Amino acid sequence: MDHLNLTRLPLVALDHLMYGLSLSGVAMMAAAGVLEAGRKRFDLFGMVFIALAAALGGGSLRDLLLDRPVFWVADQTYLLAALIAALLTFFLARIFALPARLFLIPDAAGLALFTISGTKAALMWGAPWLVASFMGVITGVVGGILRDVLCNEEPLVFQGPLYATAAWAGALVCLGLMAWQINPEHAALAGGVLIFALRVAAMRWDIALPRFNGRL
Amino acid sequence: MDHLNLTRLPLVALDHLMYGLSLSGVAMMAAAGVLEAGRKRFDLFGMVFIALAAALGGGSLRDLLLDRPVFWVADQTYLLAALIAALLTFFLARIFALPARLFLIPDAAGLALFTISGTKAALMWGAPWLVASFMGVITGVVGGILRDVLCNEEPLVFQGPLYATAAWAGALVCLGLMAWQINPEHAALAGGVLIFALRVAAMRWDIALPRFNGRL
Amino acid sequence: MDHLNLTRLPLVALDHLMYGLSLSGVAMMAAAGVLEAGRKRFDLFGMVFIALAAALGGGSLRDLLLDRPVFWVADQTYLLAALIAALLTFFLARIFALPARLFLIPDAAGLALFTISGTKAALMWGAPWLVASFMGVITGVVGGILRDVLCNEEPLVFQGPLYATAAWAGALVCLGLMAWQINPEHAALAGGVLIFALRVAAMRWDIALPRFNGRL
Repeated sequence: MDHLNLTRLPLVALDHLMYGLSLSGVAMMAAAGVLEAGRKRFDLFGMVFIALAAALGGGSLRDLLLDRPVFWVADQTYLLAALIAALLTFFLARIFALPARLFLIPDAAGLALFTISGTKAALMWGAPWLVASFMGVITGVVGGILRDVLCNEEPLVFQGPLYATAAWAGALVCLGLMAWQINPEHAALAGGVLIFALRVAAMRWDIALPRFNGRL
Repeated sequence: MDHLNLTRLPLVALDHLMYGLSLSGVAMMAAAGVLEAGRKRFDLFGMVFIALAAALGGGSLRDLLLDRPVFWVADQTYLLAALIAALLTFFLARIFALPARLFLIPDAAGLALFTISGTKAALMWGAPWLVASFMGVITGVVGGILRDVLCNEEPLVFQGPLYATAAWAGALVCLGLMAWQINPEHAALAGGVLIFALRVAAMRWDIALPRFNGRL
Repeated sequence: MDHLNLTRLPLVALDHLMYGLSLSGVAMMAAAGVLEAGRKRFDLFGMVFIALAAALGGGSLRDLLLDRPVFWVADQTYLLAALIAALLTFFLARIFALPARLFLIPDAAGLALFTISGTKAALMWGAPWLVASFMGVITGVVGGILRDVLCNEEPLVFQGPLYATAAWAGALVCLGLMAWQINPEHAALAGGVLIFALRVAAMRWDIALPRFNGRL
């Protein structure tokens, strides 16, 4: 009994933590979407729409592909978080000059969180490991791709410092640790930290994958 | 009995009216899609495909997100209406110089109709109010966004005179009236008329939302 | 008994053949995606992602619209085939100068295969004939559209020599033959061969549909 309570308590706390982290991730992606769309001459609602697509697009595609209920349709807290974050950023950016770089660190955290949660959702659904890892990448990067496509620009996640690559590496590490019987929570943590660290290191030291016609 | 018949008759008539209006909306959006795509050097079938995406895209995404059967897959009348409208527009436009402005009024009517029908569909599915209002906006504007993305242009619905904003305002008014116990049909009518009026007024007097770097 | 065995044997062989053809089609589309994305300055994983979208996008949209399980989510062989083909093409193209034209013939075969399989899947699901034919076209061309949208270019399938048009013609012929009580396998074969032949002939002799402002 004691044992059960002891293990359940932190798990409930972990659930609350994950929910809070998800909401922060959604808010951060929405804010970054506004800053990105703001360089275009879109109107307020256009920017809000793009911010929502950036924040909710990856998880929506994951849920559609897995035929699960779409996460923000039943629980409007996600939509509200994205909406408030987008409006706040819009009005703050009219007063202060917010550098886009300001959101790079939270964006990296969002990428880590979304990728690992997408991988785990696909795994619980019964997807094979390779599919699960790509579902994680889709959850992490499709929002940013949608944002860039709606702004009629080449997706940033395919260029420059490691982005989608960092997400895939972390998803694979998380799956590999699970295959070696590591506690799933620890595996998720390790994968998430790896994604965050890889992305931040890649931005700091400009680490990138080889390009088609580039030098190695 | 008399009472039942009396109330049911207009409702059946209303259903027929809504179906007819939906088909007209789909046809108008398809025609507008051809005129838009025609500025590009796409071939006939390319334009037809873009017209179909413009006419059916918003409702399809709504149905996918709500996990409902996609409306045009079971009933091919919608596809047929869009196809005929697209072909007619294509051949008429080769003979007469059709100005794109010709379709702005029916397009506004389509926006009103799609948005309200999307909002109601989401509400009947059990979506919370904020989600329902955004589902309405998605139904109304995603077709136009798809059209512009396929043409490799910045989506028009995010710029210039109120478009997505008018849709969102009407959806919120419709939901607000329903919350105040107004008859749902009347609430839908009020919301739809508001969307149409806002859009037409915005085009007439060039009313737009503030932009990121613009003046208010 | 003998009769049953005799007819079942080739059918099983046909199933294996179809599966093998599907995998080859996916691999070819992925390879073509890498060659297309390679003209942009995307990194390795960006190209792999675009190749996967090109190879799996059409079938995914078909399965979502029909509310079927998405074909590559349950069976990761498709994902693996696309991944290996994309990586092979990437590294081969760094060593040899691979002309994009190299993949035009297998791409035409993939178009034929995807279109016919999409048409049949929609028909088995119970879609009406016009819907089934468009579902075939979607399966055949949406991958290429996604590839071009992600590369921020105007979709090639809407321009130049017959592409989507060839797919639609073949789907309609396949459906017409079935309506005339022809054996479904033969109808599928006839439709597929027509698509392949139309596409190859269109590329060879530069056959195209009329354009909006063009001469007939």
